[in-house]
Amino acid sequence: MELFARSRPRLTGTAAAASPAGSLAKVAKLVQPHLEQVETRIAQQAAAFDPAIEGYVVYAIGSRGKRLRPLLTLLAGGATGGINSGHVDLAVIVELIHLATLVHDDVMDEAERRRAQPTANARWGNSLSVLLGDCLFAHALTLSTNFENAGIGRAIARTAATVCSGEMIQTQRRFDLNLGVQDYLRIVEMKTGSLFSAAAELAAVISEANASVIERFKNFGFQIGTAYQIYDDCVDLAGNERSTGKTLGTDLRKGKFTLPVLIFLRSASEFERERCCQLVLEERVEEMIELLKNGATNGALNESIAAGSDLIRDAQTALDGIESTPYAEALLCLGDALCEMFDQLRV
Amino acid sequence: MELFARSRPRLTGTAAAASPAGSLAKVAKLVQPHLEQVETRIAQQAAAFDPAIEGYVVYAIGSRGKRLRPLLTLLAGGATGGINSGHVDLAVIVELIHLATLVHDDVMDEAERRRAQPTANARWGNSLSVLLGDCLFAHALTLSTNFENAGIGRAIARTAATVCSGEMIQTQRRFDLNLGVQDYLRIVEMKTGSLFSAAAELAAVISEANASVIERFKNFGFQIGTAYQIYDDCVDLAGNERSTGKTLGTDLRKGKFTLPVLIFLRSASEFERERCCQLVLEERVEEMIELLKNGATNGALNESIAAGSDLIRDAQTALDGIESTPYAEALLCLGDALCEMFDQLRV
Repeated sequence: MELFARSRPRLTGTAAAASPAGSLAKVAKLVQPHLEQVETRIAQQAAAFDPAIEGYVVYAIGSRGKRLRPLLTLLAGGATGGINSGHVDLAVIVELIHLATLVHDDVMDEAERRRAQPTANARWGNSLSVLLGDCLFAHALTLSTNFENAGIGRAIARTAATVCSGEMIQTQRRFDLNLGVQDYLRIVEMKTGSLFSAAAELAAVISEANASVIERFKNFGFQIGTAYQIYDDCVDLAGNERSTGKTLGTDLRKGKFTLPVLIFLRSASEFERERCCQLVLEERVEEMIELLKNGATNGALNESIAAGSDLIRDAQTALDGIESTPYAEALLCLGDALCEMFDQLRV
Repeated sequence: MELFARSRPRLTGTAAAASPAGSLAKVAKLVQPHLEQVETRIAQQAAAFDPAIEGYVVYAIGSRGKRLRPLLTLLAGGATGGINSGHVDLAVIVELIHLATLVHDDVMDEAERRRAQPTANARWGNSLSVLLGDCLFAHALTLSTNFENAGIGRAIARTAATVCSGEMIQTQRRFDLNLGVQDYLRIVEMKTGSLFSAAAELAAVISEANASVIERFKNFGFQIGTAYQIYDDCVDLAGNERSTGKTLGTDLRKGKFTLPVLIFLRSASEFERERCCQLVLEERVEEMIELLKNGATNGALNESIAAGSDLIRDAQTALDGIESTPYAEALLCLGDALCEMFDQLRV
């Protein structure tokens, strides 16, 4: 299986940065004025809604995340000829789609808090939050019809459908011990890889890059996005509750079996499978995490981290042949920063 | 207030039909082959999704409703120059958006059955149903980007946002005894009028009708759609459980105060308001319905019916000056059929 076969030397673009957060900040610095424009534009979107619901929209879009998708969009725009207002529009749209899915995720997970704030569903209930997510979705897709190139709006709408389909398959297969590593990868590619992919690909389209360049950015986004989701899933099992501000093991409690669990199950004995099943059903999540760190495969978690890091290196390879600019270098550094984040999870 | 001021002679296009259902069927007959095309095309949409989720989509789009929005779209297409494949596309899209909102409505209302079938949420739970609605939404908006005229896709996405915003305001104001008749009308216009309006308006756009004709169809759709929602709300209070297959009073139980309730409250004494409040809180819905039929205003229900019928006549007036064709005549008959449906609710 390709995913676990390769190992390449690490690129060293961020050697100077002291921490993954520092590396990410360094990357973001290159497009800081544009990121601020994106932030302003996102905040302005609430005004497009009826005054009666503007407040809810402000709340939903105000929960500042890492803005990874806008960052990728802007860097890809810069690397394909320079950032223009179309790239800022695209960055706003992909982030709004992401925010819409977060609102619905929180409803489905019955999550009480996100980034230290009460979730929309915790504040106003599920009904209002379902509709709030719908409003954000519809608004993002409305914005995406403003591109002169209608193919961009079409690609964004199609990507939104793919993201939701991926989440649907994930939901359908909760508590399914027969879920395979390949099934998981497909889900992750659909729910996260596809939106990162669209961000990078369409940024290149907006720059009117040639087909082979567009293809490279598409692949870069796809692999970086997929790797990022794997990272996020690993954090849920092995992160630091204090530094991430997240409760660990929430995926397991919801029956979402992520890469470390599936790698463990793949080579587990019948006895281990049964033990795993029992721990999940009894919500003995801490014990399950121990098993993943120290199990028979000598660390399913480390193997997942290696898989994610390999994907990032593949993504970086996808940019081979792209003209060397500070933006292209920053995209490689973005990959390195993700690798560093992975490294911090190693046991 | 304009809504309750006028009374015009009834148009008599459906004099030959024996019942409202018969009148509607007569109208639909004119575009039967196209309606069947729409039906086939709707059924085919499931194949656009990942095989893992196709089954859910089949289920969600298979619950055949009245297909009022496709009927309106096709008739408007016919009345503006002849039905073409663009009108069929538009009919499919508006119905898919409607179906997406129904899936989310059922989640929010915790509805167990729709059209004698278990709802998606009853079968597969809320999480899967939230995502199923999202998938349908995103797919409908993807289809809408295929029109050569990008303004059509833009208008559809904007309408989807309006529909969701209307539902959000409705949800926000549940159990709010200060909701006024005008507030209610605004909600109904947004959540239902807007989609009917887009269907009729964009059908005329697809026919490349001139601006004043497009405007007439837009207004016709808006008023017919708003009237239809008022009708649907009245049915929930005064319909026949056996013939509609619906449990009465569900809106009241969910705190949704519809036109009859608001008309009653508008002229109610303090004593009556308190009584009304008490009945709602104690879920004594049957007594509440009695109050609406026989209350101080001598029948808030009849007044609502009159308001709905007036809107339909305004809609019909909006088509004054449109070339007389069987399709234009059928649109007037559609209004008459709705009026007949209202009449059957009179007490």
